[in-house]
Amino acid sequence: MNEVIQVIRQHRSIRKFKDSPLTGEQIEAIVDAAQMAPTSAHMQPFSIIGVTEQELRKKIAVHSNNPSIEKCGYFFIFCTDLHRMMLAAGPDQQEKMARNLSYSYFYQTAVLSAALALQNANVAAESMGLGAVIIGGINEALPALDEWLGLPDFVIPLAGLAVGVPDELPEQKPRLPQSAVFFENRYEDDLDLKAKVEEYDRGIEEYYASRTNNKQKVSWSGKFIAMLDKDMPLSGYTEYVKSKGFDLK
Amino acid sequence: MNEVIQVIRQHRSIRKFKDSPLTGEQIEAIVDAAQMAPTSAHMQPFSIIGVTEQELRKKIAVHSNNPSIEKCGYFFIFCTDLHRMMLAAGPDQQEKMARNLSYSYFYQTAVLSAALALQNANVAAESMGLGAVIIGGINEALPALDEWLGLPDFVIPLAGLAVGVPDELPEQKPRLPQSAVFFENRYEDDLDLKAKVEEYDRGIEEYYASRTNNKQKVSWSGKFIAMLDKDMPLSGYTEYVKSKGFDLK
Repeated sequence: MNEVIQVIRQHRSIRKFKDSPLTGEQIEAIVDAAQMAPTSAHMQPFSIIGVTEQELRKKIAVHSNNPSIEKCGYFFIFCTDLHRMMLAAGPDQQEKMARNLSYSYFYQTAVLSAALALQNANVAAESMGLGAVIIGGINEALPALDEWLGLPDFVIPLAGLAVGVPDELPEQKPRLPQSAVFFENRYEDDLDLKAKVEEYDRGIEEYYASRTNNKQKVSWSGKFIAMLDKDMPLSGYTEYVKSKGFDLK
Repeated sequence: MNEVIQVIRQHRSIRKFKDSPLTGEQIEAIVDAAQMAPTSAHMQPFSIIGVTEQELRKKIAVHSNNPSIEKCGYFFIFCTDLHRMMLAAGPDQQEKMARNLSYSYFYQTAVLSAALALQNANVAAESMGLGAVIIGGINEALPALDEWLGLPDFVIPLAGLAVGVPDELPEQKPRLPQSAVFFENRYEDDLDLKAKVEEYDRGIEEYYASRTNNKQKVSWSGKFIAMLDKDMPLSGYTEYVKSKGFDLK
């Protein structure tokens, strides 16, 4: 097994860090790795904000309900960015471009590309012996986050990446069996797939009940049934996305 | 520089492959790497379809207008998947779960998670000396692709990953300068950012004009202005996404 696959296989999200900042070289290497990810039509539709002001980090941590944001060696925010590609255009062109970029396909492409860059950054950080966690919960700090970071239209914060020297070594969460995720030529029949999921449910129930920290009595499916089998209010996320120029038409 | 960062920095999309299939071990290692990517709440909201039937690959290649799909060592399709997590629920629960999962936030989360898995697969393939290209253009084969692969609601093909033994070594496309992508605490001022983009435009114009294959006379911004400064018809993508259960509310 080569070193890359070793690093990928050793992945666990690290949420507790030693009180030790990243070096400039480490930060540069992580951003550089992000930029090397491929993007559709070389669009490079993402930006990265490094949050270094302690007060700002604290605000984001509180609003996102996530202490790792404040207590890590460095905190990145990965955003979609279809703003930069319009800057060299004239005002009339920009208007027309914005109308086209508002289509849902560009939104999806920008989310996908930003995520490819994010995972490169994550893996690069881990390869240097650092720990990291991807934090989708920064969406709870929206739309305030936009104002704090000065983000224009078409720039949407997608996820944070908290990086630092690990101060924990959590167990690895068992994944779904490969046969429940990877199919040849056709998606699996529901009955067969359900049987595989139920077997995985039993295994993960055991894992959650026996792990060292944060023991729970719940299966994989059970967790999502409990989360989703109720009346969830609209989160306002669509309105937010639309307010940034993505009409999703 | 460690081996992981070396592999990431050597990335180029490979579109021409030798006539040599992947081994079972290689396929398994690539899928395994994909599964090791982190996902929000351990949702694992993606599935991977390996397309091995030559006729099917040909159809997808033709509809996506992309010959690499047919002529590679192995062809994967990465999909969002919020279907599997509902299978263990009863019919009433499934109905309520589907209503909640239709929100745009879950759509975004599923796209993001599937993309993290996809990039792990891409990097893992490259680490084994294979070449790969991510193909967003499979969306042109929608909605037929759904039927060919038997994809249920909440399972959306996002991108293909064609992998194989490289039969080309293209130049690397220069990236935006780090200072045009990575900002501290606040997004860059438009005038400063525009100057950086225009400098990059001059550099990439030179690159496109002087590279070995597929010479073009166009800048980075110029390419997108040409693409977007016109009346683009609605692609029907939003209707497709909605038809798969994602109401985007």
